[in-house]
Amino acid sequence: MRQRFTARAVVVGDRVGTVVPDGVVDVVDGGITWVGPAAEAPPPGDADVVTLPGVLTPGLVNAHSHAPMVLFRGQGDGLPLDRWLREVMWPREGRLTAEDVEVAMTAASAEMLGNGVTTRVEMYFHPERIAAAVASTGARAVIATPLLPLPGMPPIDEQLDAAVALARSAPADGVVEYGLGPHAAYTVPLPVLADAAEAAREHGLLLHLHVAETTTEGADLLAAHGLSVPALLGSYDVLGGRVLAAHCVHMDDGDLDLWREYDVAVAHCPASNAKLASGVAPVRPMLDLGLRVGLGTDGPASNDSLDLFADLRLAAGMARLRERSATALTAAEAFWLATGGAAEALGRSDLGQLAVGRRADLVHVDTRDLVFEPVGDPADVLAHLVWSGAGRHVRDVWVGGRPVVHDGASTTVDVAALRAGVADRAARLARG
Amino acid sequence: MRQRFTARAVVVGDRVGTVVPDGVVDVVDGGITWVGPAAEAPPPGDADVVTLPGVLTPGLVNAHSHAPMVLFRGQGDGLPLDRWLREVMWPREGRLTAEDVEVAMTAASAEMLGNGVTTRVEMYFHPERIAAAVASTGARAVIATPLLPLPGMPPIDEQLDAAVALARSAPADGVVEYGLGPHAAYTVPLPVLADAAEAAREHGLLLHLHVAETTTEGADLLAAHGLSVPALLGSYDVLGGRVLAAHCVHMDDGDLDLWREYDVAVAHCPASNAKLASGVAPVRPMLDLGLRVGLGTDGPASNDSLDLFADLRLAAGMARLRERSATALTAAEAFWLATGGAAEALGRSDLGQLAVGRRADLVHVDTRDLVFEPVGDPADVLAHLVWSGAGRHVRDVWVGGRPVVHDGASTTVDVAALRAGVADRAARLARG
Repeated sequence: MRQRFTARAVVVGDRVGTVVPDGVVDVVDGGITWVGPAAEAPPPGDADVVTLPGVLTPGLVNAHSHAPMVLFRGQGDGLPLDRWLREVMWPREGRLTAEDVEVAMTAASAEMLGNGVTTRVEMYFHPERIAAAVASTGARAVIATPLLPLPGMPPIDEQLDAAVALARSAPADGVVEYGLGPHAAYTVPLPVLADAAEAAREHGLLLHLHVAETTTEGADLLAAHGLSVPALLGSYDVLGGRVLAAHCVHMDDGDLDLWREYDVAVAHCPASNAKLASGVAPVRPMLDLGLRVGLGTDGPASNDSLDLFADLRLAAGMARLRERSATALTAAEAFWLATGGAAEALGRSDLGQLAVGRRADLVHVDTRDLVFEPVGDPADVLAHLVWSGAGRHVRDVWVGGRPVVHDGASTTVDVAALRAGVADRAARLARG
Repeated sequence: MRQRFTARAVVVGDRVGTVVPDGVVDVVDGGITWVGPAAEAPPPGDADVVTLPGVLTPGLVNAHSHAPMVLFRGQGDGLPLDRWLREVMWPREGRLTAEDVEVAMTAASAEMLGNGVTTRVEMYFHPERIAAAVASTGARAVIATPLLPLPGMPPIDEQLDAAVALARSAPADGVVEYGLGPHAAYTVPLPVLADAAEAAREHGLLLHLHVAETTTEGADLLAAHGLSVPALLGSYDVLGGRVLAAHCVHMDDGDLDLWREYDVAVAHCPASNAKLASGVAPVRPMLDLGLRVGLGTDGPASNDSLDLFADLRLAAGMARLRERSATALTAAEAFWLATGGAAEALGRSDLGQLAVGRRADLVHVDTRDLVFEPVGDPADVLAHLVWSGAGRHVRDVWVGGRPVVHDGASTTVDVAALRAGVADRAARLARG
């Protein structure tokens, strides 16, 4: 199947913020075969031509999420972190069923698609249910099966074996890929982390874990081992391979150098880090060191929106505040963190940019809104997307060339029914 | 005219975050006469009954804006502040006409109404055109006439006299009120600031100025006078009366104490302060001292969105980061900063809360969205509004009981035509 997309502007999603005015994207069987100005495009042949009045961007990539936690959104605001976990989150999670997770993930996946997020990294219980949910909405995911020694769960060695088996059993079709998600150095025994890392390297899997999110976390481990969390991970041979570390807020220069040495990627979650008062990750220094960085929402209990556009904007603002410079992170760089940069962070060179050879995950942004005026230089499009853009501006979305959002509505699932399902299940989980 | 509004929940807009489930607001001739649970409401009599499926909140109050700068939105991102001003903003402003301002303000006022902002403090050139624009959309404004010694403008003493005359000539109908807007201590001669302050006190006018937005600003004045900006303003008898100081980012304990002594109100602009890397204002300490604080977008060239919901969320996140505490600013407090708190900051006890005796400025938020689920405790409504709410959720708006937004669309002006007008004028201003 051949498709041609033409748009007022095509945002490529690369690091320098290339914008092609009056651009064309050609797609054959779900893959991009040509990108450039309409004036230079090859003849369309028998392609279906889709003419878009707005801006075409790559599908956004959410580098860190626990999306089924839409079941807990907005609950317990204003409590200190430990009481929030103990009194609100954990009791509800203790009552979760696999079906709750599937319904919540389906709703959340549709919500994210509606906000232009075509790929998301998920780490949550019942990974196969998450996969089914994501696939039903027509989206993509990398699902890091959580490894965590919790009551009621199998021994952690068995969890690891099962997670590896699940990852190896999945078809390599680029829709759902499984990785390994040992939660963090302060929750998973270090030898298990080392085993998981070795298995991930052996099978080319993504290893996804939380690192240096809070000062408390670092302090406990420093006291116990005399090493920072990143150094501790290095000493246990956890680094190397496709490692994606979420948060990385409290990193000193040595930690950042270690990340560079092992090419560890970062999932930066500014909204969650602000809501939970965790701190501001050193994104500018990370980019200057050449680290791979992607943007993540984190779970909707600590964001709470799943609108990655809000996170883009927050990333730019927080980097500027941290570095005390209005040039610390440009709009183009912020947008890159949610597209090409995030795909790099996942180790997925098939996603994140509108470029030949990549998958045709496309977002049509409706620019008929005062917040997208004026456009002088083509680069202003990126400034508008970052500083004023929002999920509400997403009009149409294609994943691998297949339409999954049309005219602002899901073409794959019944969003109203899902919302009712989430509300009912959330009420049950809150009641206990 | 008698109206009764019933809603699934009524958010009062007070400091403690009162939410009335199944609430009623009665309105007579544009003023609120009763608020409470439906079960206790008086008989509706001959009132027009409006039944709303969502949440009813007070109209939001934007405490600091230069809204006609929608003409410059998204221009020059990534430049250092001085180059941004010199190369992008000032050349364009030099070419502005009164008609440009009126068209841009009309569009911006409609945009803000659509986001639930019923009252805004404006400081920009051509105040009478701003007033006409705001009135045409059915909104309210306090317009601080800018006082600034610029080439091509009258001598600043004459500017002050004219601004006082304008303010005294306006009808006291609560729709448009004029105040005095001497730009800042670093741009306006201090004796003129003192004269403006005296005139404001004499006539009960709002005195609105920028204070301690950047470190540079403070350093220059410290070197010249040996006093911090707030202390300098105190020494020139500028404080006292209805003073609303925008930004107040760089305030030490002595400055804050001075603010308390003179009951100086603060317009907190977290989005602008982040985008321009100005810093994070000490909102928690301000509230603990009992200062009046309202939330502002600042101008759309430095925000860029005029969606005050985004600023709410940023205010809560940035306060939490600054104080390193997830309890530093609750959702209820953040919402208060954009409603009751902002009205207090303006010295307008007739606005900002759904309470008997106040004006019936009402916003109906459509909660049929997954981001508003689940609702357990009524207080969760406030968490959803702050952490996930956005202008797009605003369905209907009334100002003084008059509908100005219905089903998401302006009932007063042609938004598409205004957008085209802004685009054309912005293009002309950018070309030079």
